[in-house]
Amino acid sequence: MKQGSNFADWQKHVQTHTEETLTRLLPPAGQLPAPLIEAMRYAAMDGGKRLRPMLVLAAAELGNAVTEAADYALAAIECIHIYSLVHDDMPEMDNDSLRHGKPACHIQYTPATALLVGDALQSMAFSLLSRPTSLDAARQLQMIQTLAQAAGCHGMAGGQAIDLACVGVGLNQGELEHMHQLKTGALIRAAVTLGGLCCQDISQQALTALDHYAAHLGLAFQVIDDVLDYEQDSSTLGKTAGKDAQTNKPTYVRLMGLTTARQYAENLVQQAIDALSSFDQRASHLRALAQFVVARNH
Amino acid sequence: MKQGSNFADWQKHVQTHTEETLTRLLPPAGQLPAPLIEAMRYAAMDGGKRLRPMLVLAAAELGNAVTEAADYALAAIECIHIYSLVHDDMPEMDNDSLRHGKPACHIQYTPATALLVGDALQSMAFSLLSRPTSLDAARQLQMIQTLAQAAGCHGMAGGQAIDLACVGVGLNQGELEHMHQLKTGALIRAAVTLGGLCCQDISQQALTALDHYAAHLGLAFQVIDDVLDYEQDSSTLGKTAGKDAQTNKPTYVRLMGLTTARQYAENLVQQAIDALSSFDQRASHLRALAQFVVARNH
Repeated sequence: MKQGSNFADWQKHVQTHTEETLTRLLPPAGQLPAPLIEAMRYAAMDGGKRLRPMLVLAAAELGNAVTEAADYALAAIECIHIYSLVHDDMPEMDNDSLRHGKPACHIQYTPATALLVGDALQSMAFSLLSRPTSLDAARQLQMIQTLAQAAGCHGMAGGQAIDLACVGVGLNQGELEHMHQLKTGALIRAAVTLGGLCCQDISQQALTALDHYAAHLGLAFQVIDDVLDYEQDSSTLGKTAGKDAQTNKPTYVRLMGLTTARQYAENLVQQAIDALSSFDQRASHLRALAQFVVARNH
Repeated sequence: MKQGSNFADWQKHVQTHTEETLTRLLPPAGQLPAPLIEAMRYAAMDGGKRLRPMLVLAAAELGNAVTEAADYALAAIECIHIYSLVHDDMPEMDNDSLRHGKPACHIQYTPATALLVGDALQSMAFSLLSRPTSLDAARQLQMIQTLAQAAGCHGMAGGQAIDLACVGVGLNQGELEHMHQLKTGALIRAAVTLGGLCCQDISQQALTALDHYAAHLGLAFQVIDDVLDYEQDSSTLGKTAGKDAQTNKPTYVRLMGLTTARQYAENLVQQAIDALSSFDQRASHLRALAQFVVARNH
């Protein structure tokens, strides 16, 4: 995708490209074991904003990325993200019955199938990243290590565990941030890093700058999530109270109030953009993505 | 471990070595997030026969294996195996409350924690295999690809899905074997292949022979499982009927009768051993393991 094109068009392009890439890389519908593969495709397709694939591709624009490696990376990141949503929605976790406007995987199929869908999608992520590409094998190992760390007990799964343990418990800002850094931040950072690593010649300095960007962006993303959840609660007052309020989960709005939380998110986004100061126009989609995160309204 | 030592001693050695390796490679007890890490260690330690680590190390004896790579491989295989047990035992799957003589992970903790333990152990497997070693990076990628395929929808998770779907359904021998080839066979084959791949100079011919060995061994393992389950049922007649009978699962004993099933297992083991004919004494532990599988009584 050429630089400077309209950001909304670029977003649409990435969303279409993600659908096409997942369609191509997931096992084909009808292949055995058919019920599992059908459920994997159900969970993976037509879903969400595709923020993480956008981050992979935007970071990959910083150098001459190996296209094939970037496609595997965006599909792998999205497989991990989707598996986490499938498992999160299950009865023993958040017990959500809707996801992306359609029945959650455990509702459409069964909890047992949803469990296996998540498990198989995680395996698939690492299968994709270990396929041969024209990147150095050592570089591919680095990508696998990055994703495995981001997904595991010191990343996303660890954040989920902290989140489970802290319902109804008062957290201070540091504790709340630590939880989010693991639960959602780690995978956002991995997406940006994997995109950068697809450029064989990227410098360590550039990777460090990318990671500063992603760390601030990931936090801003979560603060805005809390703000949007709160605002949605208010707008539906008298109907069902919002999920965060229901479960008595700690949120940024509860911690610092609505106005301060929104301001905090804007500061974080500015810091994310500042981290990109050494890059030229090649970072324009990364900058636009940061603005998008704070400006989104759903 | 030197060749020709007593097989029982070697087994004990591998079991101790597996405990020590997992103790060293799992996040240390007390590290944050403490509840998740405690539960991961609970599920992983003091468990089972450690058949898959034995297969990794026995196959690694065929050449000058990189010790560090073999340790990562045996720990990674065991992480995948343990995660599958933790998820299998959950209420929506087999709903088993005991595992290796202690409360299953979802009983000792909660189903939500068990879900995350399994998820985090799978991530950890790929984190271990992507750590730098003195093996070629391309070789390590091949190991990751092998394990990811063995664990995913065309391997273990796929076999679980077929198993779920076939309860109460009559399967012929081909269908039953296909299910087991995925459910337990794929990981047994991956264990042997990963052990072989730890030897930098191993030939493609040797890897093919190893895979023939492992494919037959994996099947024999499952046939004997069915035989043992049936015999255990008979010995406890009048008490609780065996799990397979309870759930009306298709088994080899039901399909071909006890005597024929046992004979079939013995033939498979002989074929496994025959596949090793081009190897010398370096394959003695692989041969002994095949005998062990058919001779075990629990």
